[in-house]
Amino acid sequence: MSEYKSYEALFNPSSVAVIGASENPDKLGYHVMKSLVDGGYPRQIFPVNLRGSPVFGLHSYPSIDLVPNSVDLAVVVVPASIVISTIKLCAQKGVKGVVLITAGFKELDDRNGAEMQQEISALANQAGIKIIGPNTYGLLNFHAHLNATFTPEFSSVRPGNITLISQSGGMSHMLGYQSLLGMAGFSKIVGLGNRCNVDFADLISYLDQDSDTDVIAMHIEGTDNPGRIFEAARSLKGKKPIVVYKIGRADVSDRAALSHTGSIAGNYCFYEAGFKQAGILMVNSSQELIDAASILGACPPLAGDRVAIISGQAGPALAACDVCALGGLNLSPFLSETQEKIEDLLHTGTMLTNPIDLGPAWYNTEAIKATLEILLRDSKIHGILLIIIYGSANLHMPESLFDLLKEWKQKKPVIMCLSSPSDIWDDERVLMNEMGLPYFRTPEQAASGLVYLNKYRSLLNVE
Amino acid sequence: MSEYKSYEALFNPSSVAVIGASENPDKLGYHVMKSLVDGGYPRQIFPVNLRGSPVFGLHSYPSIDLVPNSVDLAVVVVPASIVISTIKLCAQKGVKGVVLITAGFKELDDRNGAEMQQEISALANQAGIKIIGPNTYGLLNFHAHLNATFTPEFSSVRPGNITLISQSGGMSHMLGYQSLLGMAGFSKIVGLGNRCNVDFADLISYLDQDSDTDVIAMHIEGTDNPGRIFEAARSLKGKKPIVVYKIGRADVSDRAALSHTGSIAGNYCFYEAGFKQAGILMVNSSQELIDAASILGACPPLAGDRVAIISGQAGPALAACDVCALGGLNLSPFLSETQEKIEDLLHTGTMLTNPIDLGPAWYNTEAIKATLEILLRDSKIHGILLIIIYGSANLHMPESLFDLLKEWKQKKPVIMCLSSPSDIWDDERVLMNEMGLPYFRTPEQAASGLVYLNKYRSLLNVE
Repeated sequence: MSEYKSYEALFNPSSVAVIGASENPDKLGYHVMKSLVDGGYPRQIFPVNLRGSPVFGLHSYPSIDLVPNSVDLAVVVVPASIVISTIKLCAQKGVKGVVLITAGFKELDDRNGAEMQQEISALANQAGIKIIGPNTYGLLNFHAHLNATFTPEFSSVRPGNITLISQSGGMSHMLGYQSLLGMAGFSKIVGLGNRCNVDFADLISYLDQDSDTDVIAMHIEGTDNPGRIFEAARSLKGKKPIVVYKIGRADVSDRAALSHTGSIAGNYCFYEAGFKQAGILMVNSSQELIDAASILGACPPLAGDRVAIISGQAGPALAACDVCALGGLNLSPFLSETQEKIEDLLHTGTMLTNPIDLGPAWYNTEAIKATLEILLRDSKIHGILLIIIYGSANLHMPESLFDLLKEWKQKKPVIMCLSSPSDIWDDERVLMNEMGLPYFRTPEQAASGLVYLNKYRSLLNVE
Repeated sequence: MSEYKSYEALFNPSSVAVIGASENPDKLGYHVMKSLVDGGYPRQIFPVNLRGSPVFGLHSYPSIDLVPNSVDLAVVVVPASIVISTIKLCAQKGVKGVVLITAGFKELDDRNGAEMQQEISALANQAGIKIIGPNTYGLLNFHAHLNATFTPEFSSVRPGNITLISQSGGMSHMLGYQSLLGMAGFSKIVGLGNRCNVDFADLISYLDQDSDTDVIAMHIEGTDNPGRIFEAARSLKGKKPIVVYKIGRADVSDRAALSHTGSIAGNYCFYEAGFKQAGILMVNSSQELIDAASILGACPPLAGDRVAIISGQAGPALAACDVCALGGLNLSPFLSETQEKIEDLLHTGTMLTNPIDLGPAWYNTEAIKATLEILLRDSKIHGILLIIIYGSANLHMPESLFDLLKEWKQKKPVIMCLSSPSDIWDDERVLMNEMGLPYFRTPEQAASGLVYLNKYRSLLNVE
């Protein structure tokens, strides 16, 4: 079986067995079943449960080898002590992929755990089984309606084109929940756990060929072989953006990550250099990871570093200016031809150089559209930031811009800062999510969006 | 009339006239009336409207001098050309404060506008009238249910103990809307506009005596006399925290702010030095302004720089570690006595030094409470970060901690990172808002909360 196909068994399985399925809400096996069923997984689910009684209304089997059909993916939630025998049964059954949720292995300060994990890896490698975990919450493929985790609420995360790979269950959950406040949508979310025989590099190579994934977002604490990540990433350079949030900027967390993951953390600078050469964009927080991945997945490449800012009010524009300029973007004055056109159009008496303060035209849809078009048609401007803050007079502003924004979506990045009270412009945000039009809630986040695009552009020029 | 009393007329007026009140939703005078009425202002409102027909069901007057009662505050939304005559009438009527929403003065690239503004200032100073504006959206006092702005939706911002003073309407609105996603609550929000005769320093001195305000948050582009701000702030040092977000870190925005505000922007470093000496905490984004103000308003002072991190999962704890360590906090190992107690309590096999990874105890309420109490009772630990990420098994975790957190609220800062999908823990967040218990949604924001507290502590030691 090709490597690609064996990963397909994990993410697009034709059937899933849950070994340790339960009807008891105190058991993880209950939550895994609930995630699969409530998540709407449309193919066959085989609960495996010693008692053999129905689980979630589905016929269950006392052992995986008694399932009459073939099983692509097994989600394992049995106690650590019987994981090895379970993996043996999976191998006999011809299972192709395993999500091993059970904890109690290498992550513990206990030699027995590490040894068991080694044995599991050996068994899996021999049988050609890819294992996600152990000590993981699982994985999701939103496009296959597959929620193979113990968190049913994960299914509320928006589908999209970002795949998140993380070493931490807590972090993955947090990133998923946090993404609901913004524009990010996910293709897949994977918790690597203890990385028995599937690591970051393996998934990068698989995702290279995954048409549902346009951007890879990674949260890394430490790995045994960072060189493999750099190598795998290099073959995606210029094709699929990769963003990484690497823990360990400070010594204290670097040491803690080392102790926690039992692998080579350390040498943040070494990672930094490797990521740079591999064309991987680095960010410094979970929010930045979400934001950068979203924007790289929503915008065409930035052709250069010159950006324009248009805003209904000067204040947010100036805040965005600071972020753009400090982030390495060029906010030069417009070419005189463009400047004249803008002055002919707007007679606002406000600042009309870069940034443009619309002043009294802040709720004039036609004026904003015309200004936007002048800037879009200026080939010396490579990206645009449009700041719209809700006021009583501009309730219908966002939707009136959608046609123009859609028209230019593939040609030039336009990032919107869209700020409003609860309940206002929620529908517009949903529409923008569907159309893939990028927005953020604060001017600084929106400006950072342009900065990420420009940093990614620069990375592609690194030899 | 004392300075304090003349500001009280702005924020706690016994009656409000709206000059330019309208029933036509295309007019600002409509939105001002709607803000006042829908915002629930409980005292007398006098619409002033040339036509003299009822506005929002209230009897209206063709001119302010025809209002039979005395008027404390006048909100003015008439065209710029008749503002001077309107201010004269206000002075004759004995109006004590004016919110001058009308634009078209110093902010325009037009000498006439600047001259008119000068005349308005002279008239107001002579009559002892404090003017907020011109070119402002207005002001709010949440504790008086006074929404004297043209944005009715502003009333949805949560009441609390932060007063926001900003030079930008766009920024104020954005900050208000953004605050709804977190824990911030506001006492007052003021848009200074063109600062006719009320500037940052004046309001700082007033707020010094305002018992509803525990923290002052400022957004500054540029002012004519920064020295006055520093001086006013110094008398609050150690009493009421002030946080500032100063625009102009980059030259391009500094120059733009100069052109926009027509005042001394420039010299970011000069402001920086002045703020430091005055005990004012500086932040670098609108989100940070909200977050820092919230945390300074919610926590007792940090007695030292040693903090502890407890987390259900290692990943978010390590991210928080990075922020704490890089922000100057001390994450040293616990004293051996504390370490022993924690190890006796938790037998998780996970990392139990600082940070504490609860591992399998992540949904064990009693274990978390006991761990928290050990750290709270350790006088060598000055602040605590508690990270709770939603999973199916810890649905009731937050509320079970409320009693303990309330007990320690005045004694030692405990900041929670509370992350959950939409609809989960929303009620808990409302309760925490009511109790003044601080939380953020990401571990980095929560860690930054401790960093702000420590930076503020350090500022108090600057001579």
